[in-house]
Formats: sequence, structure tokens, C-alpha cells
Amino acid sequence: MAVRVDLNISLDGFATTTDQTPDNPFGDDWPRLTGAYTATRTFRERVLHDTSGEGTTGVDDKYAQAYFDELGAEIMGAGMFGLHNFPDDPDWRGWWGDEPPFRIPVFVLTHTAPRPSIEMAGGTTFHFVSASPREALDRALEVADGKDVRVGGGASVVRDFLAAGLVDQLHVAIAPILLGRGIRLWDELRGLESGYDVVTETAESGTIHLTFRR
Amino acid sequence: MAVRVDLNISLDGFATTTDQTPDNPFGDDWPRLTGAYTATRTFRERVLHDTSGEGTTGVDDKYAQAYFDELGAEIMGAGMFGLHNFPDDPDWRGWWGDEPPFRIPVFVLTHTAPRPSIEMAGGTTFHFVSASPREALDRALEVADGKDVRVGGGASVVRDFLAAGLVDQLHVAIAPILLGRGIRLWDELRGLESGYDVVTETAESGTIHLTFRR
Repeated sequence: MAVRVDLNISLDGFATTTDQTPDNPFGDDWPRLTGAYTATRTFRERVLHDTSGEGTTGVDDKYAQAYFDELGAEIMGAGMFGLHNFPDDPDWRGWWGDEPPFRIPVFVLTHTAPRPSIEMAGGTTFHFVSASPREALDRALEVADGKDVRVGGGASVVRDFLAAGLVDQLHVAIAPILLGRGIRLWDELRGLESGYDVVTETAESGTIHLTFRR
Repeated sequence: MAVRVDLNISLDGFATTTDQTPDNPFGDDWPRLTGAYTATRTFRERVLHDTSGEGTTGVDDKYAQAYFDELGAEIMGAGMFGLHNFPDDPDWRGWWGDEPPFRIPVFVLTHTAPRPSIEMAGGTTFHFVSASPREALDRALEVADGKDVRVGGGASVVRDFLAAGLVDQLHVAIAPILLGRGIRLWDELRGLESGYDVVTETAESGTIHLTFRR
């Protein structure tokens, strides 16, 4: 039972892009940052429900598979659920589709008015909580049935959990690109590496997979 | 004939440490940032004149050897020569020892009063120039005899050369540590990767060697 993080970051450390516009809601940076992951067979099957068997099957896919393995619960920020984009829509069900890829309880951190939980097809239930990282983690551990809990993102939520010393395994997939803007993962984390072992591996795509593990 | 850069950086992108004090002139961060490089047999032989044969001989050493290969001239900032620390000493000969490891002409960029060139033992000559990156590079190329020119550092000098599009090969040795402070290499370099191929390799020490090559 471990608390895990997986993030895509750029070589200059940006985990969240900020070039989105109303006309270009994902921006141009997002596909460059996440392209190696979204090209994997696992992402295509699990997130896009594409059963054609297409997609890469190398090192990137090995990490994509591990991403969904042995998880009992997930925690994510309001932004990752899309709450910030639709704050006034009580019926907003997230932008993860009718059958989200999680298939486990997902705790969405929000400081706005509480919402009822939403049960989705495929086993995902979204719970909305206003809680500290520690409290949210305790709630997730309660329902994780002895399996791992993942802190899914975004960058500032992950940073809060890292700063609180709650993360057992941090995996970053570093795209060898320089974005020059966005939200940095590594700010205010001096010395984080102490107490972790580090393993690094490079994928066929050029992506560097680096894992800090307690 | 190529223009090359080799730098040690931390995972969070700091290429120059800033924790030095009068009592601790290198600071605690410097050995953590450069330890894998200074542990190599090549560094010990070439820079410390240690002929005991000790030092690592793996991937880090392969890059350390390449560091000195096929070089015809070097360019460095005033700080890397130590001018900032001894600005009023006209006899200051740099902190690279009586027999510096370069063994080639070295152009030191400085905006202060010009100094006469200094010829050192072993083939190194220090020239002091007040020049733009392009002008300094032209002077270095003139004497490089068809070999490569290296821009040695520090971080802000390298960034100027990168921003001016003058670098053919950028090798960074990324230590898997988070310094959280210092001078960032990657600032203001959005999109630098375009026009370069990238190769990545991990050393036994955990250091990630990433090379952008035109």
C-alpha cells in the first residue's frame, strides 16, 4: 500500500501548461507535454476506449500500464476534474467521459460548496471534499482496500502532498522539450530526494522516466 | 567543428549554486551538483593532476573524456575565471591552478578594464575580451584550428549563447537532486529543442546525460 504520483513534465519542470485559450482549450503545449503517454496502447484503450490495438507498446506503455495497476483510490484537484471551468454548473460530471478510466473512488479536492458524490459507469465514483492533504489521504486510504492511492494532479496539488511528506513513489515522465511557461512541479521542494531511491530509464520516444521511491 | 556546451544541472534546472559564504566558499550544493563528474578518473587526472588511477570509469567518465576531446578553444564568463571574487587584483591568474586543464586558448568574457593575456603552464592561455557572444565565438574559432569551441559557463553565459542560436551541441548532466535555489539554465529558452536531436543515457551514479545535437 503506497501513495503514488505520476506526472508528465517538461525538461524545464513544467507540469501544467498555461497556453490555453477559449478557441484552443488545451493549448499547443499540452499535446507536446503528454504526447508520449497519450500515444500508448494503454492510454488509448483505458482512457479513449479504443480497442483497435493501436498505440505504442514500449517503455512508455510499461509505465502507462503501471499507472493503473493496483490502485484503490485516487485524489485530484478541482482543476483536474474541470470544476474551475464550470464552477456554476451543479450537474457538471467532469471531463473524463461517461466511463472514466479510474474505476475506483476518486476524491476531488474543492473549497467551494460541497456537492453530492457522483457514481459513473465502470466503477468510478467522484467524491468532493474540502480537506487538507493528510485528511484527504486518510479518506482515500479508508476505501482503498489495502491498495495504492494515487495523487493524480494537478501540479500544485501534487506539490502540496510532496511538501507534506505523504508521497511514497513519485514518477515523472520528462519530455525533452522546453516549455518556458506553465506551473512548475519542483518549486519549493529543495532536498526532496533525501529518503528516496531514484531509478531512471529512457523510452524509445525520448521521454525520461524518473522514479523516486521510498 | 562544433560549438559545444557541457553543464551539470540539478533536476530542477539549477546550473549554478548560490549557497556560498565566506566561510564555505563552495557551499554545500556544489559537491552535490558536480559530485558524479568530479569523481571520474578523467576529472581527477586532468583537473586535479591525480595520477593514481583512481576515480570512476563508467558512463560519467565517458562524458568526462569527451568533455576534453577535440577542443580548439574555450569561452567562459568572468565568474568562472574568478574575476568577480578578485576584481581589483591585476595579478589574479584564475582559480584553475598553475597548470589549468584546458591546454588551449581560453577567452574570458569581461566588461571591466582589459587585461593582458596570461600564458599558463601546459598550453592554456587566458585572453580577456569584452565582446558579444557572436564576436567572442568568432575570435575563438579563429584560433581553434578547425577543432571545436566550448562555451564553458557559467549558466548565464551559456544561456546567452543558446539564446543567440550559436550552440551546436548541448550536453547536460542532470543530478537527480532538487536544489530549490541557484541560477536556472533553462529560463527563457522555450522551444530550444527544435532543430536538435536528443539523446539520453543514465549513468551508474544516477546522473542523466542528455544531449541536444544539431
